[in-house]
Amino acid sequence: MKDFSHLFSNVSKNVCASEIRELLKIIGQKGMISFAGGLPAPDLFPAEELGEIAKKAITQNPNKALQYGSTEGSNDLRKELIKLIKQEENIDVSLDELLVISASQQGLDLAGKAFVNPGDAVLVGMPTYLGALQAFDTYAADIIGVESDDFGMKPEAIEQKLAELKEQGRQCKLIYIVPDFQNPTGTTVPTQRRIKILDIAKKYNTIILEDSPYRKVRFSGEPQETFYSLDKGQGNVITMFTFSKTLVPGFRLGYVIGNKEIIRKFVILKQAMDLCTSPTCQALAEAYLKTGKLEEHVKHMTKVYSAKRDAMLKALETYMPEGITWTKPEGGLFLFVVLPEHIDTAKMLHTAIKHNVAYVSGSAFYPDKSGKNTMRLNFSYSSFEDIDEGMKRLAQAIKEYK
Amino acid sequence: MKDFSHLFSNVSKNVCASEIRELLKIIGQKGMISFAGGLPAPDLFPAEELGEIAKKAITQNPNKALQYGSTEGSNDLRKELIKLIKQEENIDVSLDELLVISASQQGLDLAGKAFVNPGDAVLVGMPTYLGALQAFDTYAADIIGVESDDFGMKPEAIEQKLAELKEQGRQCKLIYIVPDFQNPTGTTVPTQRRIKILDIAKKYNTIILEDSPYRKVRFSGEPQETFYSLDKGQGNVITMFTFSKTLVPGFRLGYVIGNKEIIRKFVILKQAMDLCTSPTCQALAEAYLKTGKLEEHVKHMTKVYSAKRDAMLKALETYMPEGITWTKPEGGLFLFVVLPEHIDTAKMLHTAIKHNVAYVSGSAFYPDKSGKNTMRLNFSYSSFEDIDEGMKRLAQAIKEYK
Repeated sequence: MKDFSHLFSNVSKNVCASEIRELLKIIGQKGMISFAGGLPAPDLFPAEELGEIAKKAITQNPNKALQYGSTEGSNDLRKELIKLIKQEENIDVSLDELLVISASQQGLDLAGKAFVNPGDAVLVGMPTYLGALQAFDTYAADIIGVESDDFGMKPEAIEQKLAELKEQGRQCKLIYIVPDFQNPTGTTVPTQRRIKILDIAKKYNTIILEDSPYRKVRFSGEPQETFYSLDKGQGNVITMFTFSKTLVPGFRLGYVIGNKEIIRKFVILKQAMDLCTSPTCQALAEAYLKTGKLEEHVKHMTKVYSAKRDAMLKALETYMPEGITWTKPEGGLFLFVVLPEHIDTAKMLHTAIKHNVAYVSGSAFYPDKSGKNTMRLNFSYSSFEDIDEGMKRLAQAIKEYK
Repeated sequence: MKDFSHLFSNVSKNVCASEIRELLKIIGQKGMISFAGGLPAPDLFPAEELGEIAKKAITQNPNKALQYGSTEGSNDLRKELIKLIKQEENIDVSLDELLVISASQQGLDLAGKAFVNPGDAVLVGMPTYLGALQAFDTYAADIIGVESDDFGMKPEAIEQKLAELKEQGRQCKLIYIVPDFQNPTGTTVPTQRRIKILDIAKKYNTIILEDSPYRKVRFSGEPQETFYSLDKGQGNVITMFTFSKTLVPGFRLGYVIGNKEIIRKFVILKQAMDLCTSPTCQALAEAYLKTGKLEEHVKHMTKVYSAKRDAMLKALETYMPEGITWTKPEGGLFLFVVLPEHIDTAKMLHTAIKHNVAYVSGSAFYPDKSGKNTMRLNFSYSSFEDIDEGMKRLAQAIKEYK
C-alpha cells in the first residue's frame, strides 16, 4: 500500500481512534451484556407515530422535506424550537439566536472551529464527555482538566486555572460543561454553583459552552437553572440541546442558542461543513413537535429509565464487593463507578469480556488519561434482566481480577 | 451588545458570509425569476415513493432507522452503495474503502481537516465550486487557481503550479476537480486529459479529490472515465458522490471512496464532527436503492433537465446581445456566461434584480475573485416558461447596464 502520510495535516496525524470505538466492535459479540454504549432504549422510540409523520411530511410537502434548506435550519422548525425552549426553560430566544445543528457533536465541532486556535486553552471537567475531548482535539486545543466532585466542576478550581492562564498572558476560550446528569458521571451542578461559575467566566472574559442533552431526563429532585437562563441574555453562554436523548438519535438533530454574533459565525462555519442539517429530519421533528406529544413521551421514557437506574443501583448494592463506590444520578443515562486505586479498569476489561459483560474504562473521559480505576455504566439501553445479570457478571470479573 | 471577538479563532475571524448566501435573501422576493441557486426541480422528487418507504423503514426497523449508527455508515447501506458503484462505474470497492458522509460538503470539510495545515497548497480550477473554496478557507489553505478552458483544468498549468511549489519546497496537498459538468461552468474533462492530470498528480506525490455530484446527469455525449477508475485502486484518487442531484438533497447523504488509510482517517475525523450521518436518511436511501428504481428515476430527470438546458440555450441565442458567449454543457445543472470584459456582473446584478431576474456573479467561483465579467446560470430549477422569460429579462438588464 502506497504511503500518503506526507499529505496528512498535523491534526490528522495526531488523531487516533477512540478506545470506545474499538471496543464496541468486540462488545458486539453475541451473549455480551454491554453497558459501554450510550444508546437510548429503542423500544421506547415512538416509531409508529414517526412513521406516519414521515409519510405525511414527505408526500405533502416534498419541496420542504426533500429539498436543500437554509444553513440556519428551517424557519418552521426554528419557530417550534423557540416555543419549546420557552415552554421547557422559560428562555426567550429570537430566530437569529438559534441554529439547527446536526446534533450536539456538530455543535462541539462548530465551537472548536469558531474559537480554538492550536494551543488555545479550553477548560473541561475531569472527567468529561469523550466526544468533546475528541472535537477539541481536532483543533489542537490545550484541553485543561478541572477538578470535579459530586456537584460537577469546582468553581475555585476553575478560577485557579483561569488565573494561571491570565498570568501566562493566555485567554481561556471556552469552559465546557455538561451541567445536568453529566456524561460520564451522572452528576448535576447545583444552581448556586452555576452562578459562581458564570461569575468567574465573566470575570475572565470567557464563555461557557453548556451541553445539555440529558436535562429533560430527570427522575427526581428539582431542575437547576440553565447557565443560559442565569446569564439573562448577556451572551456569556452558548447552550446546546439535542433530540438524541428526548426523541430519537437517528435524526442527528440538535439546536444551539447563543448571542447573535456567535450564532452568525456558527452559521457561516456550518455552511462550509454540511450546507444544512437534513431538511428531511427537520421536517419530521417539526411535525412531531406539532403533535404536542414530546412532553408526554419524555415523561414515559424518564419513568422507564428511572426504574432502570434503580435496578442498576440495587444490583450494584447486591453484588459489588467492598471498597467500590458509585454515583446515584437523579437523571440521565449513566452512572460512574470508582474502584480501589490499584485496579486498572482498562486492563480489567479483558476479564470482564471473558465474563460477557462490558463497560467503558473511565480514563477515556479524562483529558490527562487519569481515572484509571473508574468506569462508566449505561443503564438506559439494557433490559431489567440484563442489568441484574450484567452487574452480577461485573462483580465476578472484579473479584477475579483483584 | 458585548464583544466576543477576542475569543474567535483566526479561521472564524477571517470567514465571511458568501455572496450567494446574502443574495439568496433578496432573490427570494416575489416575482423574481432566479437562476442563482443550484436546486434540483422539486416536482421530479419521487415523493410518493419516498413517503411510503419512510413509513416502512421507520416502523419496521426503528432500531436501525431511529438509533445511533456507526460512523462509517450502516453496513446495509454501504453494501448497496458498493453494488451501485460497481453497476454505475464498474469500480470495485470494499467496505473499508467507502464512507457514508453528510453529503459532499462534509467530504470537502473532511478533506480540509485531513490534509490541510494553514498555508498548505490546494489546487483548484478557475473557476471552481464555491463550497469547496469555503471549506478549504476554513482550514486556511493556500488555494491556488489553475487556468481552465472548455475541457477543465489545463494539465500543463497544473504541472507548472506543482513545479513552482516543489521549487519552493512545498508539497501540494490536493488537486480538487469537479470533472463532470463542473459547477459553475458545466464543462467536462475528457478521459485523455484525466489521464494526463493523474500522471502529473502521481509525479508530484499528491492526491486528486474528485467531486462528482452531477456525473449521472448526462444529456448527450459519452461518459468519460472517472479519475478513480483510471487510478486502478492505487490510492491517488478520492472520489465523492452524493444523492443530492440524483435522488434528493434533503437527505444530506453522500459517499466517499478512497484508499483504506485515508478513509480510516476520515472516519476518525468524522466521528468528532457529527458521530454519524443520519441513520434515518441512510435507512430511507437504502430502501430506495433496493427498489431498483434509481436508474429509471435519474433517466427521467435527466430527460427533463436536458430539455431545460435546450430551452435555456435557445433563449440565450434568441435574446442575448452581441459579444456574449456561454458554455453548452452535456449534463449537470449549470451553464456559464462570459460577457464583454468591461461588464462587472456583481454590479450589474442590481440592474438584473430591478428586472426581476437573478444569477450568481462568476467572481464568487474564482479563488482570486477574478472572472468579474462572468455569471453562472442554473437551468434545473426554473420552469420552461420562466427560463424563457428570465433570459428575456436578463438580456434587457444587460442592454440597460451596458
